[in-house]
Amino acid sequence: MKKLHVIKIGGNVIDDPKQLGAFLKDFSAIKELKILVHGGGKLATEMATNLGIKQTMIDGRRVTDAETLKVAVMVYAGLINKTIVAKLQAEQCNAMGFCGADGNLIRSKKREHPEIDFGFVGDIIPDGIDAKQFEKLLNAGIVLVMAPITHDGMGNLLNTNADTMATKIASALTVAFDATLTFCFEKNGVLKDIENDESFISSLNKENYLKLKSEGIISKGMIPKLDNAFDAIENGVKHVAICHAQNISSVTTQIKGTQLIK
Amino acid sequence: MKKLHVIKIGGNVIDDPKQLGAFLKDFSAIKELKILVHGGGKLATEMATNLGIKQTMIDGRRVTDAETLKVAVMVYAGLINKTIVAKLQAEQCNAMGFCGADGNLIRSKKREHPEIDFGFVGDIIPDGIDAKQFEKLLNAGIVLVMAPITHDGMGNLLNTNADTMATKIASALTVAFDATLTFCFEKNGVLKDIENDESFISSLNKENYLKLKSEGIISKGMIPKLDNAFDAIENGVKHVAICHAQNISSVTTQIKGTQLIK
Repeated sequence: MKKLHVIKIGGNVIDDPKQLGAFLKDFSAIKELKILVHGGGKLATEMATNLGIKQTMIDGRRVTDAETLKVAVMVYAGLINKTIVAKLQAEQCNAMGFCGADGNLIRSKKREHPEIDFGFVGDIIPDGIDAKQFEKLLNAGIVLVMAPITHDGMGNLLNTNADTMATKIASALTVAFDATLTFCFEKNGVLKDIENDESFISSLNKENYLKLKSEGIISKGMIPKLDNAFDAIENGVKHVAICHAQNISSVTTQIKGTQLIK
Repeated sequence: MKKLHVIKIGGNVIDDPKQLGAFLKDFSAIKELKILVHGGGKLATEMATNLGIKQTMIDGRRVTDAETLKVAVMVYAGLINKTIVAKLQAEQCNAMGFCGADGNLIRSKKREHPEIDFGFVGDIIPDGIDAKQFEKLLNAGIVLVMAPITHDGMGNLLNTNADTMATKIASALTVAFDATLTFCFEKNGVLKDIENDESFISSLNKENYLKLKSEGIISKGMIPKLDNAFDAIENGVKHVAICHAQNISSVTTQIKGTQLIK
């Protein structure tokens, strides 16, 4: 089986042109098959503010109303996606930018919640990843750059969490590839001491994760990321890691960051 | 040679969801290979206004400054492109949305003008269309939806005229396909009497075009469109037409609109 790297890049790196440039240079140098899933950063929030679109939050989660969805599509699938693609092309990396609607790559369903209407948020449906289509594109030498927007197959675009998207893509592609999944962010990995970037845990299994979570050592923002990561492992992704964006080159050898194990 | 339809859809249709929906339904029903090139409509101008970005015009042409380029990328390659793709997918049409940076499909160069700086406007360079890449995607059963944004290969996105983009794509693809090029807009074709939509000329050659232009019968906005159309004919595109968006189905038989001939 061919090796495939599914790499998620988060907002903080996207917001900083210098960091993003360095990351994309390193990403381009990875010789194996690869998919980049990107989040949004501050740009979408800024854009919504500038357009006078009020952001509604329920329990700390943003509600995607119709106007906010438009901004998400513009910023994620438009500006950020195409900026990344143009920069990768300049590095001789044959990137193509997609959202889930393109080629029906990722099908989702508007989130249903008994009490809260999250608006135009899409949860990827079972078998919602078209592994065959991904496979064809990858085998044609294309590096896929995925924006966190999906569709419901009935003509509607939906906002989808980028971490979850990366997890589902890697999981679905284990059928055809020896897939790795790496979440890149602005820290060296899962930290024992949030103040000390060198305190990253080099190897973490689910049991230890649950223990550290119950002790309050693993913090709020890290929890959904780790839940996604352990989901991927349970779905057959052999190498799942969390690392600093500047250490992405290590994905091909021994990850410099937190390796998650069964 | 397989038949390929390159179809350009303009702003007025894009601005009207009902018209756009009807057009996309008809477009989906075309059984042969096809590429849709879309313009922008009023949305980009509205968005720029809402964001407080001043639009500079020189000789009736918009200057694309850095902020205006961002809006163009967001609106064209983001919102409009992905909205069209999602709607085509809902019609069982296997669409994928691209700009020129994706897969290095269309390479351009920042426009140089001795007196006027048009800003981030890209003119497609000779051999700037990667016909092989287009061919691969088309032969894989993909319907390409092209946003009028290109790149310079050095990491910069550029704003490009959609009519010209459609012309260059159709011209470059005559090597591999029996290509047609159709410009769809809100009139029945080239009109003899601008007030009477039934006065469309069913067949027009270059000599007659130049005559009608010198007589002032062919109006200002139609001139660049017709110049593009005759360029395509000179570059080997056998069937070039201008028709109403609602008559796009006729592209597979006898066009209902203005057929341009040598």
